[in-house]
Amino acid sequence: MRASRYLSATLKETPTDAVVISHQLMLRAGMIRKLASGLYTWLPTGLRVLKKVERIVREEMNRSGSLEVVMPVVQDADLWQESGRWQAYGPELLRMKDRHDRDFVLGPTHEEVITDLARNELTSYKQLPISFYQIQTKFRDEIRPRFGVMRSREFIMKDAYSFHVGEDSLHDEYMNMHATYCRIFDRLGLDYRAVQADSGSIGGSGSQEFHVLADSGEDDIAFSTESNYAANIEMAEAIAVGERAAPTAELEKKATPNARTIADLVNDYGIPIEKTVKTLVVKASDEVGEPLVALLIRGDHELNEIKAEKLPEVAAPLTFATEAEIRAAFGAGPGSLGPIGLDLPVIIDRSVALCSDFSAGANEDGMHYFNINWDRDLPLPPVADLRNVVAGDPSPDGKGVLEIRRGIEVGHIFKLQDKYSAAMKARVLDENGKEVTMAMGCYGIGVTRVVAAAIEQNHDENGIIWADSIAPFHVGIVPLNAHKSPEVMATAEALYDELTAMGIEVLLDDRDKKTSPGVKFADMELMGIPHRIVVSDRGLEAGQIEYKHRRASEKEEWPLAGIAQALAERIKV
Amino acid sequence: MRASRYLSATLKETPTDAVVISHQLMLRAGMIRKLASGLYTWLPTGLRVLKKVERIVREEMNRSGSLEVVMPVVQDADLWQESGRWQAYGPELLRMKDRHDRDFVLGPTHEEVITDLARNELTSYKQLPISFYQIQTKFRDEIRPRFGVMRSREFIMKDAYSFHVGEDSLHDEYMNMHATYCRIFDRLGLDYRAVQADSGSIGGSGSQEFHVLADSGEDDIAFSTESNYAANIEMAEAIAVGERAAPTAELEKKATPNARTIADLVNDYGIPIEKTVKTLVVKASDEVGEPLVALLIRGDHELNEIKAEKLPEVAAPLTFATEAEIRAAFGAGPGSLGPIGLDLPVIIDRSVALCSDFSAGANEDGMHYFNINWDRDLPLPPVADLRNVVAGDPSPDGKGVLEIRRGIEVGHIFKLQDKYSAAMKARVLDENGKEVTMAMGCYGIGVTRVVAAAIEQNHDENGIIWADSIAPFHVGIVPLNAHKSPEVMATAEALYDELTAMGIEVLLDDRDKKTSPGVKFADMELMGIPHRIVVSDRGLEAGQIEYKHRRASEKEEWPLAGIAQALAERIKV
Repeated sequence: MRASRYLSATLKETPTDAVVISHQLMLRAGMIRKLASGLYTWLPTGLRVLKKVERIVREEMNRSGSLEVVMPVVQDADLWQESGRWQAYGPELLRMKDRHDRDFVLGPTHEEVITDLARNELTSYKQLPISFYQIQTKFRDEIRPRFGVMRSREFIMKDAYSFHVGEDSLHDEYMNMHATYCRIFDRLGLDYRAVQADSGSIGGSGSQEFHVLADSGEDDIAFSTESNYAANIEMAEAIAVGERAAPTAELEKKATPNARTIADLVNDYGIPIEKTVKTLVVKASDEVGEPLVALLIRGDHELNEIKAEKLPEVAAPLTFATEAEIRAAFGAGPGSLGPIGLDLPVIIDRSVALCSDFSAGANEDGMHYFNINWDRDLPLPPVADLRNVVAGDPSPDGKGVLEIRRGIEVGHIFKLQDKYSAAMKARVLDENGKEVTMAMGCYGIGVTRVVAAAIEQNHDENGIIWADSIAPFHVGIVPLNAHKSPEVMATAEALYDELTAMGIEVLLDDRDKKTSPGVKFADMELMGIPHRIVVSDRGLEAGQIEYKHRRASEKEEWPLAGIAQALAERIKV
Repeated sequence: MRASRYLSATLKETPTDAVVISHQLMLRAGMIRKLASGLYTWLPTGLRVLKKVERIVREEMNRSGSLEVVMPVVQDADLWQESGRWQAYGPELLRMKDRHDRDFVLGPTHEEVITDLARNELTSYKQLPISFYQIQTKFRDEIRPRFGVMRSREFIMKDAYSFHVGEDSLHDEYMNMHATYCRIFDRLGLDYRAVQADSGSIGGSGSQEFHVLADSGEDDIAFSTESNYAANIEMAEAIAVGERAAPTAELEKKATPNARTIADLVNDYGIPIEKTVKTLVVKASDEVGEPLVALLIRGDHELNEIKAEKLPEVAAPLTFATEAEIRAAFGAGPGSLGPIGLDLPVIIDRSVALCSDFSAGANEDGMHYFNINWDRDLPLPPVADLRNVVAGDPSPDGKGVLEIRRGIEVGHIFKLQDKYSAAMKARVLDENGKEVTMAMGCYGIGVTRVVAAAIEQNHDENGIIWADSIAPFHVGIVPLNAHKSPEVMATAEALYDELTAMGIEVLLDDRDKKTSPGVKFADMELMGIPHRIVVSDRGLEAGQIEYKHRRASEKEEWPLAGIAQALAERIKV
């Protein structure tokens, strides 16, 4: 592509309404433009990237054995009434009436349509397992569309649906999709993690999210340094290792008039924070026979509310006791509680069970116990996993330790089981001629969102950094002062022709002298073109051109002869 | 693809709600299924064809220099208000409100969106000419969707828009698009004509429709046997050739009490129909100074109302005088009119001007003149092109004669000029730094419709006949009685692997013995797979396989050795 015949549409200034870096860079690099809230036009540069993402997704889905179809964007409301989602879905479901006053929706997903298709076309177990996918426009009427295409109203999704007789078949396809997604995100050049969406073992849980790691992500992901274990931080099991040390000091009760928080205890009394324990009081479930339960975690840890809520002793939804309730029950404030003399059921975190010589409130305002030791000063209460993991915790699968990073969800694989097939009576005959409801899986990738996530993960102060596989162009050629040197332009053109004939995608910046070399370099960096060639008079005199990779800090001088081949070897698509 | 892992979804019976053959065959061949009125899901076989059409369109559009973009399906109503189409467009424009009660439409076309983009991104003549295209879902809320995807509500269109300073630049791009469309329809393997949508010369007219020739088409197309002249029948110029013969008989006025029509005159008096003339009376335009005008055409010709309406003497819209008005003016009925003694302005068709010894009414009920001759019996009136062309007429470009066939419109190229750019103030600075409104062209192809049109043109009693370039599979392999012969299946599998590795798309019908060979053959014919291979025990004994092309009536015996190469040579993609 010649820049003179292209719409690069780069912007020097960062548009003020763009908050996240990918949105800013997609606007500045001329990839997208906003039509209206949550509605974007993909310009040539953006579209080139989008189509490459689509192609990789399509190739790997085809390889997985899934069959491509395309279902309508506009869907009949009848099916949504049948599945129950017509009522259950909120205003994100855009509803409309056609000219005959019939109800329709703009599809946010296609479970109803595919289940309708399956119940009409599939009659026998012999046709199963079968999987269908589409790459199609979807619409969700977000109340507050934001972050550009990261959370837009209209977007492109790859959604796949599989149909099975029996759990084993569903599980096989689930694992097939897991492997397919890994191949897809590998080819997209992304650093990602397949994250368990609940606490089961990988695959067995039936729900995994694929997250691209990036500082701007909305979710905290814990993952092992040495295995493929990864989980949403709320779901990661916190393991306590080692044994409790023997007591080394006498239990002591002291007046601590100014110690109202863990930080006070650490600062004022020189207690290491891991030797402090917090007592949190929550409403108990009916089975406890008391109104309240105390949960104890170390001072340096955070309560994991999802884990707490799953305890049989704790009422769901998790509700903290108010200060007034605590005072009424114990005669002390929430900052002065502790296990000694606490007259209610207590559950302690695994880490707390390993503490020795620790400090906690004395259930009297202004008083703390120091050097508390289990079994010596009081019996060990029931133990549970109550806290969020922290970086450095051992990985629950026993391999390596946990790292914690933020992630952007770009894919999801999920065992739907019979949620839709039961409601919509999608049945086949099994081997015994008996009618059975099909089991279903669904598997999504946010195709437009992947583009934004790739930028969130791969950029610097000069712009985007694309992997070769999804770059809008593989190579950028800048002829320097071409208006003064016909040889420079002729060399650039010859190289352009040679590379193009090899199937390498090149942007030749042939804009005239009114566009300075500096602007040309800045545009190529902003657009994230991975390989840059500069052709100059001085270089040609030495039989050289200048090469620079977008990630490299240094330029390289390459001999002009054989340069196309040398470039081809560097490009990994 | 193995049939056992595919959803062929073929149907034996023709669905009763499908009227046209393409709709019937697309349902029967498992290409589409109806979700709701005018809304279709594309099944795997249909999708494979659709994606190939898309790819050919994309490759040729890229080659033309047009830049691919994608604009939202959901469009802001504001832009439609600005262009005036919010008011002008009927109920085919599906309007809806989002959760914030703002007005939106489902895009039936994208002129507003692209013009908005152009006015924001294009500022200088240096950026022009530029052309953008997209392949995108569109929606028209047809009052009566019918014929399957031929006239559906949701459909896929390739729409392109070009921007220019000046008419010459627009014309160059128009011709570039003309050539691009010819390449596209050539590669799709279609018999088509680029049809002038008005009577100007090719290209100069600024509007051409691309029609696929098929008996089921809705339009009559006249085209030359020896040039690329083609026009909608209403638009084709009727040329009269030769000279008027000298009179051979005396003028005669006869009582013809039973001759009320041309057919009566031909049947009862033995007059050749081309020697009869009809007189049609229409309302005159203001410039005539009389209320009525008579138009004379030969008895075997049809008045072309569009041509008539363009005459300065005729009022638009064309209005025929009623029988009462004719009686009041001439004292005779409409079946008894003729040029002799007719007291109002007369215009005669070119063919009528060449008539000699012809018959017409005498402007008295029950009376006709025979052997009328111009210049002898009355002066020659003004002459114009008033009639529809008929097969065998000379082509207006002087090359060959006209053929007339029916056509299905699948594409349109059109000089929009400044219709949208003026309304929406899309301007750039020209070479002199002066603001000018851009000229625009728009260029559409009905991508989903092309699939149906290809079938309308290419089918037989057994099903669809695909060109190699858009066939869902290039080759079908049927292993005969494979359950009895492992060698047959092994040979079929090996051939399948070899062809697949060569990039040839194969459907291997590996369904078990419950599916009879007859059903397998019928499915492949129905699906229109162009090349069929049968592997059988008997063939293998002779070292042969059976080959049959979908269009051929005879099978061929091919040696098994080198068969992949032989097939590759036959396949034209």
